[in-house]
Amino acid sequence: MDYQKLIEKVFLKTAEAGNPGKVASYIPELAHVSPEKFGVHMITLEGEHFAFGDSDEQFSIQSIAKVLALSLAYTIEGKEIWKRVGVEPSGTAFNSLVQLEADHGKPRNPLINAGAIVVCDILVSRLKDPKKELIAYIQKIADNPKINYCPTIAKSEKEHGFRNAALINFIKSFGNIHNPIDTVLDFYYCLCSIKMSCAEMARTFLFLANQGKDVVSGEEILTVSQAKRLNAIMQTCGFYDEAGEFTYRVGLPGKSGVGGGIIAVHPGKYAIAVWSPRLNEKGNSYRGMKFLEFFTTETASSIF
Amino acid sequence: MDYQKLIEKVFLKTAEAGNPGKVASYIPELAHVSPEKFGVHMITLEGEHFAFGDSDEQFSIQSIAKVLALSLAYTIEGKEIWKRVGVEPSGTAFNSLVQLEADHGKPRNPLINAGAIVVCDILVSRLKDPKKELIAYIQKIADNPKINYCPTIAKSEKEHGFRNAALINFIKSFGNIHNPIDTVLDFYYCLCSIKMSCAEMARTFLFLANQGKDVVSGEEILTVSQAKRLNAIMQTCGFYDEAGEFTYRVGLPGKSGVGGGIIAVHPGKYAIAVWSPRLNEKGNSYRGMKFLEFFTTETASSIF
Amino acid sequence: MDYQKLIEKVFLKTAEAGNPGKVASYIPELAHVSPEKFGVHMITLEGEHFAFGDSDEQFSIQSIAKVLALSLAYTIEGKEIWKRVGVEPSGTAFNSLVQLEADHGKPRNPLINAGAIVVCDILVSRLKDPKKELIAYIQKIADNPKINYCPTIAKSEKEHGFRNAALINFIKSFGNIHNPIDTVLDFYYCLCSIKMSCAEMARTFLFLANQGKDVVSGEEILTVSQAKRLNAIMQTCGFYDEAGEFTYRVGLPGKSGVGGGIIAVHPGKYAIAVWSPRLNEKGNSYRGMKFLEFFTTETASSIF
Amino acid sequence: MDYQKLIEKVFLKTAEAGNPGKVASYIPELAHVSPEKFGVHMITLEGEHFAFGDSDEQFSIQSIAKVLALSLAYTIEGKEIWKRVGVEPSGTAFNSLVQLEADHGKPRNPLINAGAIVVCDILVSRLKDPKKELIAYIQKIADNPKINYCPTIAKSEKEHGFRNAALINFIKSFGNIHNPIDTVLDFYYCLCSIKMSCAEMARTFLFLANQGKDVVSGEEILTVSQAKRLNAIMQTCGFYDEAGEFTYRVGLPGKSGVGGGIIAVHPGKYAIAVWSPRLNEKGNSYRGMKFLEFFTTETASSIF
Repeated sequence: MDYQKLIEKVFLKTAEAGNPGKVASYIPELAHVSPEKFGVHMITLEGEHFAFGDSDEQFSIQSIAKVLALSLAYTIEGKEIWKRVGVEPSGTAFNSLVQLEADHGKPRNPLINAGAIVVCDILVSRLKDPKKELIAYIQKIADNPKINYCPTIAKSEKEHGFRNAALINFIKSFGNIHNPIDTVLDFYYCLCSIKMSCAEMARTFLFLANQGKDVVSGEEILTVSQAKRLNAIMQTCGFYDEAGEFTYRVGLPGKSGVGGGIIAVHPGKYAIAVWSPRLNEKGNSYRGMKFLEFFTTETASSIF
Repeated sequence: MDYQKLIEKVFLKTAEAGNPGKVASYIPELAHVSPEKFGVHMITLEGEHFAFGDSDEQFSIQSIAKVLALSLAYTIEGKEIWKRVGVEPSGTAFNSLVQLEADHGKPRNPLINAGAIVVCDILVSRLKDPKKELIAYIQKIADNPKINYCPTIAKSEKEHGFRNAALINFIKSFGNIHNPIDTVLDFYYCLCSIKMSCAEMARTFLFLANQGKDVVSGEEILTVSQAKRLNAIMQTCGFYDEAGEFTYRVGLPGKSGVGGGIIAVHPGKYAIAVWSPRLNEKGNSYRGMKFLEFFTTETASSIF
Repeated sequence: MDYQKLIEKVFLKTAEAGNPGKVASYIPELAHVSPEKFGVHMITLEGEHFAFGDSDEQFSIQSIAKVLALSLAYTIEGKEIWKRVGVEPSGTAFNSLVQLEADHGKPRNPLINAGAIVVCDILVSRLKDPKKELIAYIQKIADNPKINYCPTIAKSEKEHGFRNAALINFIKSFGNIHNPIDTVLDFYYCLCSIKMSCAEMARTFLFLANQGKDVVSGEEILTVSQAKRLNAIMQTCGFYDEAGEFTYRVGLPGKSGVGGGIIAVHPGKYAIAVWSPRLNEKGNSYRGMKFLEFFTTETASSIF
Repeated sequence: MDYQKLIEKVFLKTAEAGNPGKVASYIPELAHVSPEKFGVHMITLEGEHFAFGDSDEQFSIQSIAKVLALSLAYTIEGKEIWKRVGVEPSGTAFNSLVQLEADHGKPRNPLINAGAIVVCDILVSRLKDPKKELIAYIQKIADNPKINYCPTIAKSEKEHGFRNAALINFIKSFGNIHNPIDTVLDFYYCLCSIKMSCAEMARTFLFLANQGKDVVSGEEILTVSQAKRLNAIMQTCGFYDEAGEFTYRVGLPGKSGVGGGIIAVHPGKYAIAVWSPRLNEKGNSYRGMKFLEFFTTETASSIF
């Protein structure tokens, strides 16, 4: 299949279909990004690269980084991690708080804010220098020492983070946060501040298409079983209240971020990253969703 | 791979692991089934059959039949069906009512009771003789004219169906039921009363592993795209509030019923049916879940 | 105090303050009432009558009749009634269903629909001819054999009663309805169909200002303690999600109906009925609320 | 009426009726109070005092102090206060968070934690030295310069205050907290730490039985209208999810605290304070509720 040609075709079809929705505006670093940015980068297990548009420009990957924190915590804790966070889809943000109450402070899954905060608490407990060790882990997976936190974004997130402060205090009232709140939140905001380009993001997540192994070095990042399970979690929980829609329309495990990025993985085949800042009403990239829907339809490449 | 040997091995391992949980008891037809029944039947796209235990004994497939009603309605309505029912996981039964209110009477997905009732309403609107045409459709897919409704079960369901009556009245108050309540409920209870053995169930659902085509006749039951999407819906919505857990542990699209049955489909490979009446606290077959977890781990055959 | 002069003054002040809001329109019998109707009638324990406006025109008292059904059931059951229905305010309609679930089918209080339906179920169990005996009871309290059900309204209510049908089925699924659903709903819709004028309504409810005794005959309708408690329930539960607002602004026990009527009682002093069909967004008479707020402010006659 | 004799009789009747329930234990200062403490103190508008049991021993009045903060804020803000906090009963703690979301960060009423925190935020905005001015205000009303905060309790509250920290952050995310979170919470915990005896508490709240005026000096603390409205709010919102039950059983406006205290007010007649640390399952003093129920039944002195 001529992926380059196909990506260009689908890219243009998506671009022509309009660009409604709104750029996230709760922090200036997101609000000031040009809403017309649009890039895509795909890497196959054979090592082929296909790209188009703004695929080399870095953006804030936001919640997509939660998958990497989970990967590290899962490596350290193994199955024990599921005592502190679940694997079920979360429904609406609205339900999130109600369900935290009903579930006695155990977040529904590790990819919503509440769950990622618990994952951060686990890493704070287990790592000597959490910030340093996490970014080293990500740089290694990404095979790229330039990937880093963005202090400006982390600072802005903190200043507007009353909801997250509410969540962590609520969870701590049930005993499911073991470290000081400020330490965990500080670490969490660093996690959310990571910047990557589509090219870097596709490279970083390629191990999830390769049964947990790095495609170049062959090093095991997750076991086969763990990689499958992490993909399963992305499938059911990666798109907030639109996980079902993404599964239905795109049919690949993936994760979106409020910065407009989406990573999707076809196990055994490829990883593909898309970026377009305007979000639909559920908070996922409008064009990112559209592109991936068209792309998997054209390639008939859903996992189903 | 020697599937027969593997199935026997996994069957015995599961059997040895205990059999906690409770048989559904809200109607006598379910309550009186022996809790120790345990059967499995697998069919590959190549037409090979592998079975063990009580695989030829019929049981009430209950909610599993919702997938077949959806398949028929999807064929008739196409994408229009999603105007009346969503594709998102539902969370707890508790949330179900709240979400119906929040979503103005549009059920979250077609595999929860509320959604299946709306699917039944659609079929009642579109078919001349809904009961007759639905069972004919199922018999054709199953390649088996003996599959049928069980009037005793349908009657019992109706007598204990106050929650379903509440649901349909609530949905009708939003205008999302177009036919008389009694007509729709009567049809719905027939749907839930269908009986199959594991062998029959695996045969019936095999088209979903075969891109929507019957493996023998080659006839198209769903288009490729529709079959993929129906699998996607089973993946995110097939196990009530345990869809994430099933996806995480088993990694295949599937659907469970309160009678203790589970169907799972590996697209491109096989369909497998398991039956064991004791249910875990989420209402899914305890042994059925365990068997499939062990089985997909042994065969490394999840879709992720 | 010159109550007649005061009532006229407050009436005109209220009339001048505008008449926003909407007439209830879910059944034609309510939708077709002139929105400019406005009447008031007050009776003191000394037997003085003061009236103004459309005080002698009958209208559908709707939920106000729930107080009378409760009064009869309370007389028959005594404290046992609180095993089947609570005395707590209900919050929003939205919460109503959630709380029914959380409270296992026991409605929060007898003045919301769910609770009044349970009260009707109790009367159906206890009375030989519920419709006949209830209206006889009301006619006696009202000292007026002309008070009656309106079959047209009862029929319309039934035809639009999907929400109530949902409620009663839901409650029955918890075992808190003992009689056939149709029998109870039929009786409930009769209760809601009663018509009275302001003059008749003030006379009917005067016993609640008089420690449970009829002011003319002296007959005990409720014991002193029961009358106090029924007033207490009206205070906390009489105005749907606006009970606190009414208590805050008016400071008297009362009950409103979707037909635009309000009854309020000052224990030891008087009963006062107001009618104006336009409803505020919480479903209570816009002018009725305003009139009573102005009136109790002018007379400094709240119970607080 | 011989109130002294009556109080002793009702006290003994209550004491004999058992003392189930649990002392609040989330902070040591509450957990270490003897569960058998039991005191009562009543003051009439004529200045008569009647007391029995441990009526002169100070205890932590906890949430009862919220009424005094509200009184001060109401004096300063007037009706404007209702733009930031409502007057409706709150239902369960569970619903509290849901309703905050539904109401966009406006708490249901000023006597639940969320609402009292907003009241504290208002006072922090309006007062130069909030802690000093609030306690001066309370000392004046109490006619007692010895009433004060308890720093040990305030400190303990803060250390266990994750739920309150969650609430205030959540409210601030909606913009309904104007000052720094730590400043407001610090002030709030001081408010909750105030200690009084039954004798002191009855004296402090007597102005609410006297149309807002101090009984000795005649000074206006609240206007007549404001005093009525504050009583109305206590009636519908003073007992968490048991406001209806208290209204039904006792029939007086009042407020309870988790330290086992209850204040109740009979407008135009008296104020009465009760203290007994064991709480029922709704978090209100078991014996306090019982005593007041028996007392108002004996004296037939409910406001209804």
